[in-house]
Amino acid sequence: MPRHFGHIPGIVPGATFVDRRELREAGVHLPTQAGVSGSATEGADSIVLSGGYEDDDDQGSVIVYTGEGGRDPLSGRQVKHQQLVRGNLALAVSHRDGLPVRVTRGSRHTSAYSPETGYQYAGLYRVDDHWREEGKSGFFIWRFRLLSLESAFQPEVISAPSAAAVRREMVTVQRLVRDTAEARRIKALYGFRCQVCGEALQTSAGPYAEAAHIRPLGAPHHGPDHAGNLLCLCPNHHVLFDFGTWSIADDFGLIGLPGKLMVHPEHQIDPAQLAYHRARYFQP
Amino acid sequence: MPRHFGHIPGIVPGATFVDRRELREAGVHLPTQAGVSGSATEGADSIVLSGGYEDDDDQGSVIVYTGEGGRDPLSGRQVKHQQLVRGNLALAVSHRDGLPVRVTRGSRHTSAYSPETGYQYAGLYRVDDHWREEGKSGFFIWRFRLLSLESAFQPEVISAPSAAAVRREMVTVQRLVRDTAEARRIKALYGFRCQVCGEALQTSAGPYAEAAHIRPLGAPHHGPDHAGNLLCLCPNHHVLFDFGTWSIADDFGLIGLPGKLMVHPEHQIDPAQLAYHRARYFQP
Repeated sequence: MPRHFGHIPGIVPGATFVDRRELREAGVHLPTQAGVSGSATEGADSIVLSGGYEDDDDQGSVIVYTGEGGRDPLSGRQVKHQQLVRGNLALAVSHRDGLPVRVTRGSRHTSAYSPETGYQYAGLYRVDDHWREEGKSGFFIWRFRLLSLESAFQPEVISAPSAAAVRREMVTVQRLVRDTAEARRIKALYGFRCQVCGEALQTSAGPYAEAAHIRPLGAPHHGPDHAGNLLCLCPNHHVLFDFGTWSIADDFGLIGLPGKLMVHPEHQIDPAQLAYHRARYFQP
Repeated sequence: MPRHFGHIPGIVPGATFVDRRELREAGVHLPTQAGVSGSATEGADSIVLSGGYEDDDDQGSVIVYTGEGGRDPLSGRQVKHQQLVRGNLALAVSHRDGLPVRVTRGSRHTSAYSPETGYQYAGLYRVDDHWREEGKSGFFIWRFRLLSLESAFQPEVISAPSAAAVRREMVTVQRLVRDTAEARRIKALYGFRCQVCGEALQTSAGPYAEAAHIRPLGAPHHGPDHAGNLLCLCPNHHVLFDFGTWSIADDFGLIGLPGKLMVHPEHQIDPAQLAYHRARYFQP
């Protein structure tokens, strides 16, 4: 079964669970021990805040979550550096891909938002930052900043200062509110290489690319959210495509840039969407 | 006097004005005739929806605004193609730079959100898309999609915002505007060229670059919002910087990439912020 990203149908933020087993049976968080559910290839789909790490910082709509590993199993104390592997790498991949992460708080997690008993589903968050720092123990820990995607928490959102942040926020929101599966599939098909320049940006969370809609989603364009309307692009060529600096002919020749769009044999690009982009966005 | 972006102090969304002259005296929208206030170098700071264009589409929090020009002054009918110049270009620059635009509706503007008489300030919006299409007249028109930045108008928000929420929103918006000024200054200093690769992405709205914070804003980093904590980068190098693929030594030698950061003599980069990025983000 493919990993499920997003809400579990029928389970709304605020839902409570007696124990980890009930949480697992509901599908909210499948591992009964691990705090992170995920893999290095797919990303993390859910986490549980259960009070294990002294360095967690929970402000409700903004959570700074401490990664896993490096603890002595008996004392629970940090005795080694944490590595960017397993659950930590899965959360870094969720950051890279803008995936929604289900967050659940346990009663042993100390915060103003923790339930008195059992576990409480807090809804969807996105990882908007990850970094390494020296924890209270003196060893390196990985930290992940999670921002709530639930509207009730939105007013406190971290400032979005620049065109860059706004642009990436839009990219992220598009990925989140629509089905992310198609975008992920297209990016994987190209190995995260840009269809224009062939470059895949290398990060510690793996290669980075963006799924660009040829005809934009939302009113008044109502572009379809399927592979025929998607391109795999590096951020630079994505910005230039959205601003109409270049477009694509029906034979995939580039217009406004030299060369030809690289197209995978399994990627059926819809000519109607190309015509839409040429007519409305390309500026000779 | 520099063009003022953002709210006018003391004037909240919902404020009403008898006529364009009162709107001008309040500082909300300075031109008494033109629908767009702005310039091609600075961007647009405000618009008025006054019912002149048949193609406007106002859904409250999402407005598709039709550009100016190409109309017969007597009949008001579209008789020529619109060009990406003057007010239209100013709005495209606001899109490129992520600038907040004050929006005011007049009573002759036909929508569920228009006032019965005079003019009503609707608050801040951002331009998130612009394109050219054939209008109802058969001539090309420019269109701009505007999204509300006011929490009260966010469709997801169910209940009326509390005073605290409104205040937080105002603080966030003020911060957005302040951030924007510093980011614009740094980008202009470099002529929108990336400090790593020297490239400036060319769009019809002018060159595009992103202002990157060396130490991130917001909890738990609390990076300062001044030029010493900013870089001018292309989107590709911005993503790679945020993901720790490269960092910067105190002598501006690049770490993880060949070469040296280009630094303008008037740009005083703060070594403490570089040290923060190296320690937490760079991954050898």
